Amino acid sequence: MIGRLNHVAIAVPDLAAAIAQYADTLGASVGAPQDEPAHGVTVVFITLPNTKIELLYPLGENSPIAGFLEKNPAGGIHHICYEVEDILAARDRLKAAGARVLGTGEPKIGAHGKPVLFLHPKDFQGCLVELEQV
Amino acid sequence: MIGRLNHVAIAVPDLAAAIAQYADTLGASVGAPQDEPAHGVTVVFITLPNTKIELLYPLGENSPIAGFLEKNPAGGIHHICYEVEDILAARDRLKAAGARVLGTGEPKIGAHGKPVLFLHPKDFQGCLVELEQV
Repeated sequence: MIGRLNHVAIAVPDLAAAIAQYADTLGASVGAPQDEPAHGVTVVFITLPNTKIELLYPLGENSPIAGFLEKNPAGGIHHICYEVEDILAARDRLKAAGARVLGTGEPKIGAHGKPVLFLHPKDFQGCLVELEQV
Repeated sequence: MIGRLNHVAIAVPDLAAAIAQYADTLGASVGAPQDEPAHGVTVVFITLPNTKIELLYPLGENSPIAGFLEKNPAGGIHHICYEVEDILAARDRLKAAGARVLGTGEPKIGAHGKPVLFLHPKDFQGCLVELEQV
């Protein structure tokens, strides 16, 4: 069912420092910061040859990553995103297997303009898993 | 400098349950468990179309992931691994930029039979980063 690893998302406490490190020290291809007010984050995509790293930095009040950065002040890996062909079919299969979908259970439009869902970390080896329909 | 994302490693408290979830519920291609006594882990590779997920489970006494699972009893993302062409050149570039290499600073042979190094999470946005020479 799951396809490609779309991205690994890393929450960072200092976006400029993270950009400089990936661009200069690690020599990766780093995009421009994009504010995503609907998601409460500023996002920077790092393009690797086979997948992406997504840097996340809080934007505005009530950012969904503010709590994560309080618990992990140095930052950390926030979630991984797997691609699926049919997000509703994937959701129903996961729910039938006992996995919990976060929020309303209905897909939202994610930072890439595609339908996404998040799954409960306690049901996935402690990992916050995003599914993105591609 | 960094190339492909070689893998995302997830430490799991119940290897059989994690295998069943990835193989059956998520429908991924899951390999057989491999004991790696030199690394203190049992490893299972999940092959996605563009990269791998590596499930890690403690093996023997003093497993390097035992402490991680004590702090994260449900499991969690343990590290990410970037490929590099020349691991000594990469190490020297990172050290010159002030990043700390774990252990002796000399590459070891990793679970894939390739030279690897681990970098200090505090120097990489709270992420444990492995470099693997390919």
